[in-house]
Order: sequence, then structure tokens, then C-alpha cells
Amino acid sequence: MKIDDNFFMKLAIDEAWKYQLLTYPNPAVGCLIVKNGEILSIEAHKEAGKAHAEVNALKAAYLKKYPNDVIKAKNSSHDIHKYLIENHKGFFNDCEVFVTLEPCNHEGKTPACSNLLKELKPKRVIIAHKDINKEASGGIETLLKAKIKVDLDCMRKEAYDLLYPFIKWTSGTFIFYKMAQTLNGSIDGNISSNSAKAYVHALRDKIDLMLIGGNTVRNDKPTLDARYIAGRAPDIMIYSKNRIFDTNIPLFKVANRKVTISNDLFKLLDYKIVMVEGVYNLLNILKEKLDFIVLLVSPKIRNGINALNDIDIDFEIVHENYIGDEKIIYLKKKS
Amino acid sequence: MKIDDNFFMKLAIDEAWKYQLLTYPNPAVGCLIVKNGEILSIEAHKEAGKAHAEVNALKAAYLKKYPNDVIKAKNSSHDIHKYLIENHKGFFNDCEVFVTLEPCNHEGKTPACSNLLKELKPKRVIIAHKDINKEASGGIETLLKAKIKVDLDCMRKEAYDLLYPFIKWTSGTFIFYKMAQTLNGSIDGNISSNSAKAYVHALRDKIDLMLIGGNTVRNDKPTLDARYIAGRAPDIMIYSKNRIFDTNIPLFKVANRKVTISNDLFKLLDYKIVMVEGVYNLLNILKEKLDFIVLLVSPKIRNGINALNDIDIDFEIVHENYIGDEKIIYLKKKS
Ligand SMILES: [Zn+2]
Ligand SMILES: [Zn+2]
Repeated sequence: MKIDDNFFMKLAIDEAWKYQLLTYPNPAVGCLIVKNGEILSIEAHKEAGKAHAEVNALKAAYLKKYPNDVIKAKNSSHDIHKYLIENHKGFFNDCEVFVTLEPCNHEGKTPACSNLLKELKPKRVIIAHKDINKEASGGIETLLKAKIKVDLDCMRKEAYDLLYPFIKWTSGTFIFYKMAQTLNGSIDGNISSNSAKAYVHALRDKIDLMLIGGNTVRNDKPTLDARYIAGRAPDIMIYSKNRIFDTNIPLFKVANRKVTISNDLFKLLDYKIVMVEGVYNLLNILKEKLDFIVLLVSPKIRNGINALNDIDIDFEIVHENYIGDEKIIYLKKKS
Repeated sequence: MKIDDNFFMKLAIDEAWKYQLLTYPNPAVGCLIVKNGEILSIEAHKEAGKAHAEVNALKAAYLKKYPNDVIKAKNSSHDIHKYLIENHKGFFNDCEVFVTLEPCNHEGKTPACSNLLKELKPKRVIIAHKDINKEASGGIETLLKAKIKVDLDCMRKEAYDLLYPFIKWTSGTFIFYKMAQTLNGSIDGNISSNSAKAYVHALRDKIDLMLIGGNTVRNDKPTLDARYIAGRAPDIMIYSKNRIFDTNIPLFKVANRKVTISNDLFKLLDYKIVMVEGVYNLLNILKEKLDFIVLLVSPKIRNGINALNDIDIDFEIVHENYIGDEKIIYLKKKS
């Protein structure tokens, strides 16, 4: 196996995928720091408002060499920026910084990463994909002006797939269908483990809207909140022509939640990130509008209903990972 | 993400899995070399008779620093051993060697890796799993006697899963069921890509016996050879009570192949590595004897027959990887 730029960037991309969708409205970004060939850190942006991938990776890299440095106690992006700029003593001059997305150049909730890198002056910054957001872009120019070597487009295709949800929700709506099944495609009964459920609840905590079928609400009476992680319950749109529901079921009783009942799917386009759960005919109705399927696969073969047997769609696997003993597969519709 | 021994060993294990089953009768083994924190190489044992993982990794590590060294032209295990012992000049003294299995201690088709390491004197050898083969074992003792620091059992569980087929075929029979399906479990039609087919043919080239159902032979008239890779066609056992077959079909015409027709599954135990293909009722009949399912998953949803819907089995995913755009998932029956 070749230990080259692609090898390092792939590790950064894989790390970023661990937080895919959970960084909404920010993009998922990963960063890896190499010093004289040694990997010092592999980190990611984990949640909007928290430190960017570069900041997490620079801090972890410094700590790898100085495990007891006071930077350990600095957690806010602002504090880490300030501390590194004042105390780096040239530590990063022989480092290479692999980042999946062009470093931000805009002072927002957090200070600009391009400015931090400019001050730390690494030997080289390797960027997989340019920023698509005009406000944040200019990071590459800032680095070049500071005479830092920049290499572009390493693993660009993989970085584009990682960035794809962000591209969609910044320019319109990102719609993903979440489902869980056994290896043989059965959807019956209680399929998912608790870790998989906690992940689904973490997704629900982040999204703008959840779309669910009317019959699922009538039959299963789900609450559809994020209690496994003590998170925020998403707004719900129940897809139904018939507007009559028993509003005494828990779904309607969750505080700070809006529930609408509609069969107008164009309303989804008023939202930036929409998760669809449950009703499989929605998959067929939505398939033209669908960006991703997030498929949780439980490693068992079970007698049961195969929900998808009337549907034909071709996908590309853009990523897969484990959640506990189960697989999570991110599928992008083939265009 | 922590950059520690586990991180390095996982990379070695993943590399070894790329050649899982293809190394038969040898175990799949991976090796990673770190010099002062820098990963120099990640290599694996690829095929019986070819160089062991350690030898491939030591050669690649040396080449990473001296890309034009004459070692580039040395390919036989014996030549690489000899060259490194004579020319290492202490290169490996500050290296750490991560190997998924205890280095062999036995002069067989190839010289012993423990002896090579003893001469190269790396700073540390990290071993995920002890050898289970009495003849080859003693590698750790050889290293310790040479005053090389040895750390054991890093990622032991993952290394055990990697070693599991070898453990089974050295002590009896390793039986795996190979199947291909779409995401929703449909098995209809031409599912697999050419790269997936080439992989299946590479497996056929290595195995002792292939078990296939009588009706598959009667209906599909498959050849079951390894023509995609110009490989050896395996012996065939047709599982059938009825011994009457049209022996003019290509399956019976392949040179140097034995075809038996039997419904006595105990005969499988006369072989060391058996691949089962095709007939899904065999999965149910064999499920107690089955070690692995090797599942090829094509990323599409298709209307079709779901073959496994009458079967209940729990698995553990021991590894997964890509073959082109498809997934390959190695499932071990949960005990
Ligand atoms: Zn930033
Ligand atoms: Zn060896």
C-alpha cells in the first residue's frame, strides 16, 4: 500500500464522515497533521459552533508532542487560536496539514482557520476540495500570500461526496431517507441496536424536518423525539391526504415541536435538511428528489417483510462505517 | 482519533484482509513498519509461496527511504532476506514492526521471519496474535532472546477474526458460503460487476472443493471455472440425491477437475477449504457447519426474489471492503 498524500487524506475524510450530517449547518470536515512523516493527529469538525477540524487537529498535534501543555485545558476555538499563535514557537513549520475542505477565511462564530495557519506557517497545506461558500472562501489565497505551499484536489471526488450534503443544503434542500434492515432486507420488528438508535436520535436532534407517513403514525404511534440523547425533537410533517389523527398520541405532545399534516411534498423545499423515515412508498414517491439513503444494516438474516421489492434505484456507496456491531451505509442516488 | 499501537495494527489488519482466503493454505497476515513515528510501509502476505508480510513490509520500508536501492529488483523471499541481512546498516534499529501474527520461526519454503527480524534488530515488535501452528511457533522466543522488545495482544480480537479461516482449515475444514445480492436482498439476474466476478474466480482458483446444488447445475448449467483470472477450476461436489446429470454440459468437461455427486455432506470434512455457491437451501442445511458468509452487495435496489427469507441466523461482521463499486462483507456466524 502506498503511503502518500492520498493515504493521509483518506484518513482525514474517514474521520470527517463520523460526524456527517451532525455538523449541520456546517460541512463535515476532517484534518490530519503530519510532522516529518509522522501522523500527529486526525480530527474532525464535530458540531456547529464548536472548533473547526483544523483547530482540533492542530491542538491534538501539539498535545501529541507536549502531552502536559496547558493547551489541554483550552476548548473554545478562540482560546486555541490565541494560544497557538502566541506559543507555537515554530512547532508547525515542518508540518503538513491535510484538510478535506479549503480552510475558512471568514471571521464568524469562530476565528478564521486560514489566519491561524498563516501564523503557524506549516510547510505545506493539502486541500481536497475548494470551498463552495463565497463568504468563507479566500482561504487558499491567504495561505499563498503567506508563502505557504498549497496542493489542491487530492482525493477530490471523495471530498466532494463528503461535502455533498452541505452543497445541497446551502443551495436548497438536502433530503435523506433513513432506514434499517437485516442483511436480507427484512424490516420487521425491532432491528436496530441501542447504539444505532442513539445515532438516529442524534440525527433527529440536528434536522429541520422529519417526514413520516400517515399510516405509520396511525399504526405505530411513534413519538419521534431524540430522547436517547436528550436532544431536540424535530418538527414533523405527516404525509397524508386524510388530516384526521388522534392528537392525544405522544407525537403531538412534544414541547416546541410543530406538526403539520400535508400531502404536498413541495413543502419540503422550505426546509434545508429533511429526514424521511418509515413509509416505504415515500421512497418511491421521493426517489427523484432524494439525495442520500442512510441505511443501517443489522448483521442477521431474518424471516420478514422486504419493503423495497417494488422499487428500482441505482446507488453509489459514498461511505460506510460501523455503529457498534451494525453497519451504516451512505448511499447517493446515481445520476 | 488516537494515533496509538491499535491505530497502526488496524491498518496492518485491514491490509491483510485484502488477501483473505487467497493465501490458502497460509494465514492472511499484515505488517506495518514505523520509523520514528513515520509509517514507512503497510504490506501483506499475498499468496502461498510468495514473501511473508514481514518481508514485504521490510523491503517496502527500506525502499521508501532509498527508492533506487537495488533491493527493488529482489523478489524472492530468500533474496530479500539475504540482501537485508547484509545491507541494513542499522536502518531498522529505530523501527517498530507491527505484525498481525507471531513471526514464523521455521525454515520452510521461505526463510524464517523471526531470524530476519533478529538480524535487523528493530526497536520493538508488536504482535496482535500468537501463532497457533506448533511447527512455526517460537518466533517470540527468538525475538526475546535477541533482546528485541515484544508487545503482545494488541487488537487481538480483530487479529483472531483475521486468522479464523486459517485456524479452521489447519484443524479441520473451513466452509464458507458465497453469495451476491442487491441492497434489498434480491438475487435475481446478473448482479455482480466484473471485478466482483474476478474476485470470485480468484477464490475458486484457491479452494479445495466447491459445493453446488443439483438444481443449479440442471437449470443454469454453469461452468464453475476460474476463467476470469485464467485460474485453476476447483473440484465440484454436486449436492443431489438424484445422480442423473447431462454430462455434456461444460461443468463436466473442464480438464483436471473431479466432479462428485452426493448428498452426504460429511464428505465436505475430507477437504480443508470449501466454498458453497448457489443453492440457498444449502445455507439452511449447512448453517451449523458454516464458518463464514462472504456476501457481495451491489448498491442497487431491485425488484426480485429474496432467497433468504426462510432462514434465521445471527452474524458478526468481521470485515468489509470494496470490490470496485460493490461491497464485500465477511460474516462470521455468531456462536
Ligand atoms: Zn475554519
Ligand atoms: Zn514468516
